[in-house]
Amino acid sequence: MAAGSSSYGIEQLRKGCYYEWMGLQAKHIVDLKEALINHHRASDDDHKLGELVGQILNDFEKYAEKRSELSHRSCSSYLSPSWNSSLENGLLWMGGCRPSSFIRVIYALCGSQAETQLSQYLLKIDESVEVNHSGFMSDLTATQLAKINELHMEVIEKEDKITKKSANLQENVADMPIAIAAYTMDLVDGNVVVKDALDKHEEDMAALVTEGDKLRFETLRKIVEVVTPVQAAEFLLAGKRLHVSLHEWGRVREEGRFGCARAEDATAARSGTGKSTTC
Amino acid sequence: MAAGSSSYGIEQLRKGCYYEWMGLQAKHIVDLKEALINHHRASDDDHKLGELVGQILNDFEKYAEKRSELSHRSCSSYLSPSWNSSLENGLLWMGGCRPSSFIRVIYALCGSQAETQLSQYLLKIDESVEVNHSGFMSDLTATQLAKINELHMEVIEKEDKITKKSANLQENVADMPIAIAAYTMDLVDGNVVVKDALDKHEEDMAALVTEGDKLRFETLRKIVEVVTPVQAAEFLLAGKRLHVSLHEWGRVREEGRFGCARAEDATAARSGTGKSTTC
Repeated sequence: MAAGSSSYGIEQLRKGCYYEWMGLQAKHIVDLKEALINHHRASDDDHKLGELVGQILNDFEKYAEKRSELSHRSCSSYLSPSWNSSLENGLLWMGGCRPSSFIRVIYALCGSQAETQLSQYLLKIDESVEVNHSGFMSDLTATQLAKINELHMEVIEKEDKITKKSANLQENVADMPIAIAAYTMDLVDGNVVVKDALDKHEEDMAALVTEGDKLRFETLRKIVEVVTPVQAAEFLLAGKRLHVSLHEWGRVREEGRFGCARAEDATAARSGTGKSTTC
Repeated sequence: MAAGSSSYGIEQLRKGCYYEWMGLQAKHIVDLKEALINHHRASDDDHKLGELVGQILNDFEKYAEKRSELSHRSCSSYLSPSWNSSLENGLLWMGGCRPSSFIRVIYALCGSQAETQLSQYLLKIDESVEVNHSGFMSDLTATQLAKINELHMEVIEKEDKITKKSANLQENVADMPIAIAAYTMDLVDGNVVVKDALDKHEEDMAALVTEGDKLRFETLRKIVEVVTPVQAAEFLLAGKRLHVSLHEWGRVREEGRFGCARAEDATAARSGTGKSTTC
């Protein structure tokens, strides 16, 4: 696909795909919150929660497929999207979050809930007050934790392999034919060799973004297999709120620094996700 | 440094620092070309070339120091600068090029010149024509090549260590306190805990950018120690032309895709480096 109107069209489709996903994230957050409240109040069976979790995973898989379809050539905009703040782009790994960070979210939830439970337990001893259940992630069994830990190691190893491939692709740009074309040619704008080599570079990077998305999906799927439906719902809610919040925090920090640069994108993103999504 | 007018000021200083550096790159390219032509024509002594190479290394060290001074907090704009195209940002490693790519440029020059010499040699045999010296990088001795190869391995190992640190910092964002703040708080805009944690994250990333700059400088310095002054001049010229060309190619490709998005920045960059710098 040559640079021009069709590439511009694809770029717009990518942007649309992202905003659609952020809109869906907002819906997922509302759905997960409601489902968790109902589960807590009425001790709903796990079946409904399990269905919602399954639906959310399906939505992620569809999103990844759509990204992959739109990534042929010119994938650079996934690596450093104009619709993200610098903070978010600095956190990107293969055009998305690190799959290992999903597991860090579990550890964070688990630790935080255990801390709250300990405080509440001490409060109960001292003052005999009734306390609430702080969450289900701290109920992870030793077997579940061992599986999660094993998954963490496995994911880090897979991440490292993809990172290494990406490093090689980056290094290759400093080799023939690109480096030599830059060195020897005076007019390089319309150079076919360079264009083809850069197209090939972007295609190869696009394949790595797709590999990254697959690892993200597989990690989510394996986590959901290990934890209970209510734990899965808590985990997904935490992950999605972190994503949406980082988008919002990055935008706010950037607005203070850059003035209005990128503000248009940020505003569009905000209208897609709604500030209320962090609430 | 809180987000606000002073942060905006620093962001402008960073942009100015970059454009100043790109302007200096254009000057270096002209100086190196002239020095190499003079060396070829008049067989100038290596002393002048050596002085120029030393001056260029000093300039890079000064630029890195200035970047470091301006990187305290809010360093995200170095990781994904608004003044770069997506193509260039996709090639970034710790806010700059991979130090290992310097060595790939040497291999590329060496291979390309050896190829040209072979063609010229065959041409001379067949038609007894006079041919020109194609460059000095193909004259690298076995000892020099062994040292360069050793340096390549060493640099890749150091790059990997810094990459690992960066991966850990990225993962940490998905842990306490940030992930928990995103999960538990409804109004996060003005949250002090989150602000402090993100400031700390950006400070830690800034330290990695400085480490990256140090490795870039040390790699350049060690290369210059191994090669002759004329080879160093050829290498620096190739590296700088690659940098400036990638900036220009990225801009041209992006203009075709995004329309005029980021065009203002690109135009400013262009006026700093001048399109003629690639000539």
